[in-house]
Amino acid sequence: MAVIVPFESPSNASIDGLVGLLAADMERVNATILSRTGSEVTMIPEVANHLISSGGKRLRPMLTLAMAQLADYSGDGHIKLAAAVEFMHTATLLHDDVVDESELRRGKLSARMLWGNEASVLVGDFLLGQAFRMMVEVGSLRALDILSAAAATIAEGEVMQLAAAKNTATTEDEYLAVIRGKTAELFAAACEVGPVIANRPKAEQTACRSVGMNLGIAFQLVDDVLDYGGKSAKLGKNVGDDFREGKITLPVVLAFRRGNDTERKFWIRALERGEIGAADLDHAIGLMTKHRALEDTISRAQHYGAMSVDALALFPPSPMKTALEEVVAFCLARSH
Amino acid sequence: MAVIVPFESPSNASIDGLVGLLAADMERVNATILSRTGSEVTMIPEVANHLISSGGKRLRPMLTLAMAQLADYSGDGHIKLAAAVEFMHTATLLHDDVVDESELRRGKLSARMLWGNEASVLVGDFLLGQAFRMMVEVGSLRALDILSAAAATIAEGEVMQLAAAKNTATTEDEYLAVIRGKTAELFAAACEVGPVIANRPKAEQTACRSVGMNLGIAFQLVDDVLDYGGKSAKLGKNVGDDFREGKITLPVVLAFRRGNDTERKFWIRALERGEIGAADLDHAIGLMTKHRALEDTISRAQHYGAMSVDALALFPPSPMKTALEEVVAFCLARSH
Repeated sequence: MAVIVPFESPSNASIDGLVGLLAADMERVNATILSRTGSEVTMIPEVANHLISSGGKRLRPMLTLAMAQLADYSGDGHIKLAAAVEFMHTATLLHDDVVDESELRRGKLSARMLWGNEASVLVGDFLLGQAFRMMVEVGSLRALDILSAAAATIAEGEVMQLAAAKNTATTEDEYLAVIRGKTAELFAAACEVGPVIANRPKAEQTACRSVGMNLGIAFQLVDDVLDYGGKSAKLGKNVGDDFREGKITLPVVLAFRRGNDTERKFWIRALERGEIGAADLDHAIGLMTKHRALEDTISRAQHYGAMSVDALALFPPSPMKTALEEVVAFCLARSH
Repeated sequence: MAVIVPFESPSNASIDGLVGLLAADMERVNATILSRTGSEVTMIPEVANHLISSGGKRLRPMLTLAMAQLADYSGDGHIKLAAAVEFMHTATLLHDDVVDESELRRGKLSARMLWGNEASVLVGDFLLGQAFRMMVEVGSLRALDILSAAAATIAEGEVMQLAAAKNTATTEDEYLAVIRGKTAELFAAACEVGPVIANRPKAEQTACRSVGMNLGIAFQLVDDVLDYGGKSAKLGKNVGDDFREGKITLPVVLAFRRGNDTERKFWIRALERGEIGAADLDHAIGLMTKHRALEDTISRAQHYGAMSVDALALFPPSPMKTALEEVVAFCLARSH
């Protein structure tokens, strides 16, 4: 069962513009990624490349490259920083799969199913170490500061999510704090380091950070909606994964708050106690539809998307600026 | 059953001298550790402090402080680097417990038994992030380079161990490569950053690195012996843990190589296939005794201990140099 969320798609919702503008840089990033997963310990490139070459969009490293171009950066430190950002992201995915006991990732068996939890934990640690090595090679202490703070914040957000897990009383604000940490912080840091290595004024650095932070929040909220419908099959995720794992996401927060006592008992039974029957996912989606929880999660995502675009307004018109606006629209349009 | 390994203990085998010389600095390191495990997400300080305050000797951060003093360092960057080294070590322990499915750590229930694998993975990631933040604050790119390379090498060593797991055909050289990575590299990096932040000549940096590398190898080899006897009960480890987990350590490598066909079949059954009966640990210790595998592992450890002491010879006599020599003797004397 899938829900079609009504939402006007702008005709320019695409990452093609960004991909085109960054093609040359991304080729260098990909070569760097390939060489830095190399190790005589053959299990490391096997596990790392399983995930890295499994068809992610590489949105985060593209953001680093895009912001460096937007800031007229002329060096080549952005290549290693972008590769480092992708490694940080990949390390997070490897560790998340262990934490969530996931069986699938992007439609393929997760690394932990193929090589075990041990390899997922350790190869994640290896990639994190390699990410820091590349950042050190770039030599910007400020960029190192931003990305190392992000690493700690991401883990903090994940622990927060763990602590809030299965708690249907989670508020929207609490949930926002979780996704700012676990998802949006890396988007923000990936964007911020672009103008930082270009030595641009502080105002441009914070503007780029805002672009990333708000885009990251919007991205995660759309992801939350996709888990209850939309075209998620294409993404290699199973509809209902979050539900079965008892994850509290914004659609649940809204449906729970707006529901009556009987409905709240349903959510508590299914998500807190994990007693889930065959018809329960459909019932959950029904309740979300009744309370407009999915539509309103999309509305919230659009709000953050608008903030992201407004943060870009500081910069003069350019093909890169237009391409970034289209990426925001693309992230929102994924929901239908 | 425990084996007493005959080994002459020098009367000066103690860490008391080092502890005394570093008391003031260690107080600052401990305060830093405490403040940097702080988080509004209460599970983070809970998990981190469970392990950090559980009575480890803090040998690694003490080495950083000791080498900084030996190099006449006058700043205060060594405090944060020492705390960062301890965080890296703690993160490794948290992740190791998940990888090894350990139930005990230093005689207490491991973090994963108390808070789950999820928290162990994520709090480890948080500590790693905080470690890098502290290094960045110190501002030495060379120290950052050394410690970030160490982070990648440690993970690489652990994956190597995973790949070699249960393989009784592992050679002594292969085993040494594993422990250089998973254990000795952090000792080496912890020592090397002392003279690095003091801007001492390259020869002193490599000397300190050698002190740490060889001490780390000796330390791990003694640990391997303790797992088959000695006074390991005091360490909160169970005698035979490595055996039951099918870990190939140097005592096994030596006993296997020196054994006859029947004995090799025993090692393969127990360690590769994991078919272990009640009397098998005693039988394993008996075979090790027969082939002098434990004594010779201690001899190998003494060899690396001697290399560590000789690497110190570059430095003029001082109370700190003497204290470090006593630490090497202490690490060797743990075995009986």
